[in-house]
Amino acid sequence: MKNILSLSFLFIVALAFSQTKSKGFAVHSTDGKFQPYEFNRHAVGDNEIKIDILYAGICHSDVHHVRGDWGKEEYPMVPGHEIAGKVSAVGKNVTKFKVGDYAGVGCLVNSCGHCEYCKAGLEQYCKEAVLTYHDHDQFHNNETTQGGYSNNIVLTEKFAIKIPKNADLKKVAPLLCAGITTYSPIHYAGVKKGNKVGVAGFGGLGHMAVQYLVKLGAEVTVFDITEDKRADAKRFGAVKYVNVNNPEDLKDLDNKLSFVISTIPANYDPNLYLKMLNINGQMAIVGLPPFEKMPIIPIDKLIWQGNRKVFGSQIGGIPETQEMLDYSVANNIYPEVEIIPATANSIENAYQKVLDGKVKFRYVIDMQTMK
Amino acid sequence: MKNILSLSFLFIVALAFSQTKSKGFAVHSTDGKFQPYEFNRHAVGDNEIKIDILYAGICHSDVHHVRGDWGKEEYPMVPGHEIAGKVSAVGKNVTKFKVGDYAGVGCLVNSCGHCEYCKAGLEQYCKEAVLTYHDHDQFHNNETTQGGYSNNIVLTEKFAIKIPKNADLKKVAPLLCAGITTYSPIHYAGVKKGNKVGVAGFGGLGHMAVQYLVKLGAEVTVFDITEDKRADAKRFGAVKYVNVNNPEDLKDLDNKLSFVISTIPANYDPNLYLKMLNINGQMAIVGLPPFEKMPIIPIDKLIWQGNRKVFGSQIGGIPETQEMLDYSVANNIYPEVEIIPATANSIENAYQKVLDGKVKFRYVIDMQTMK
Repeated sequence: MKNILSLSFLFIVALAFSQTKSKGFAVHSTDGKFQPYEFNRHAVGDNEIKIDILYAGICHSDVHHVRGDWGKEEYPMVPGHEIAGKVSAVGKNVTKFKVGDYAGVGCLVNSCGHCEYCKAGLEQYCKEAVLTYHDHDQFHNNETTQGGYSNNIVLTEKFAIKIPKNADLKKVAPLLCAGITTYSPIHYAGVKKGNKVGVAGFGGLGHMAVQYLVKLGAEVTVFDITEDKRADAKRFGAVKYVNVNNPEDLKDLDNKLSFVISTIPANYDPNLYLKMLNINGQMAIVGLPPFEKMPIIPIDKLIWQGNRKVFGSQIGGIPETQEMLDYSVANNIYPEVEIIPATANSIENAYQKVLDGKVKFRYVIDMQTMK
Repeated sequence: MKNILSLSFLFIVALAFSQTKSKGFAVHSTDGKFQPYEFNRHAVGDNEIKIDILYAGICHSDVHHVRGDWGKEEYPMVPGHEIAGKVSAVGKNVTKFKVGDYAGVGCLVNSCGHCEYCKAGLEQYCKEAVLTYHDHDQFHNNETTQGGYSNNIVLTEKFAIKIPKNADLKKVAPLLCAGITTYSPIHYAGVKKGNKVGVAGFGGLGHMAVQYLVKLGAEVTVFDITEDKRADAKRFGAVKYVNVNNPEDLKDLDNKLSFVISTIPANYDPNLYLKMLNINGQMAIVGLPPFEKMPIIPIDKLIWQGNRKVFGSQIGGIPETQEMLDYSVANNIYPEVEIIPATANSIENAYQKVLDGKVKFRYVIDMQTMK
């Protein structure tokens, strides 16, 4: 008995020493106030890598999680699932990375690896998928996962994305969420050159969707609720901009588009866009408002707009995320970012701009400036 | 002036003489009481045929229209859009039919002929499509259209469907609605041999869907809300029957089906079926409840069930309706019908059975028995 107690004590001491010390910025309630926060991540396992985080994007869904818009959350919470950094340690079995490589992390850090979704490279739908933050990691003693507004992260190499050496690193982080979330449904829907398509909501996700669609050779119409983004839409290559608050703009749009992607993170009427689809047209829904404002599709609208398909899409699997990152860098497709310093105050200011719809188009925290 | 008046008078007299005298059964309000009703249809035009109606199916949507479930209706109304009969007159330009041929009519009697939908053979989505009843025919002086619970109908040959000589005529009428409404989305979704599929709602539409899916070699699970249909589902070739009111039956169904067709004409939760779809699965919605009970799909359900597509489908276009009828007759696929006499009383009794969910599976009125 005494021996067992001694061994347990040694194990706990060893565990404490081998854990990864981390620091970042956390909220402690739905009030959205950030504070410096020190915490432990698990030790770097044999198949894992440690990434020193250089840049972390601010996604609208970070704001939703911080505010508890999608249900009760646990605090303290370090948000951030758009991560770009440099590998600083590798486990003994790691083959994909070496120390000094650049690596990215998106919304996922692990999954079961053997279910039909994992086998199909759609790990985001795995029932045991571990989210980068606001989750518990059942593969590591149910550790609370904490995100990218921090100085490092530890995860299995499988879920880390290789960042090409020639990438514009400060712009890469948002590709891991905003990039893959739009890239995946655009390719799933089979958009082709010459297709007339729509992008509803022209923010962080929307401006990525426009770039991928323009690159494919589609004719893009952008929809948003303000005049402020009209020039930007044209600058990104859209052929048309529709301010949906302007009735004149909404004329003659029915049955014109073969594909619409809705990135809108607020309440809206999906039927406005369903009506715009032409025969066999498809609508992808990726934007997600707070639960109490969730838009609905009455099934009769689907029947009257028959032969139009609607589908939801959640980020993308790991193989497709790597494909998206390689494609984006090769084609010089990046988010338009505003780099902000790693202080509680600058993060809070950025959140307010996101809530006010004033962000153009993505805030990225320079984690190297954290004190 | 006098000459013009005389000419007008002659024209009106000529029109009155050349009109087609019809009689059938009409309701005069939402009370669902049928009465014998005599009315005029327009004369047989150069491109038109007159069909003496032999059989008329009773569709659940007839009940919805009679009761005003889908908005305000005009009365008197002669329902019926599942029509099988014999050609008794042809206009001088008609080439598709000759007197004595068998012909069918479904939900449509005309459309503009030149819009993108008409050109694609999807006349049901033409903005100027004329419905077989509860509509006004803008191509014939805005005549009120009246349906198949009557002794004849006059329409352009294009919208009449050729009934093969070897068809089992008394069972053909419901194919023109229940048949095409299920055949079309099953083929649009690309269901293949060996696919695991579901049919939600096992009534007039549902039992047709099961037959088409079984013929394609799919493994069919049938969903309904009663034990009474379990044996029938097996008899039609389903491998499984799920009583959705039985929690035991609902276990272990998630992510199992590649296609579900919902024919449910009442309120239900579409997410129950969305959850059952596996990767890239598709759900077709064809059943339509009363407006005030319309099921909805919150868009977050689509995102959580990502990569699943939902689409609505409204009957089918004229070319596909002909294809369906030829296919059904060639493969001996018919509705299971109960033939009832053409009396107001028997129609009213049949409506009550439909409302009570007691019909197995389609009532067909033998219009030859009308006095």
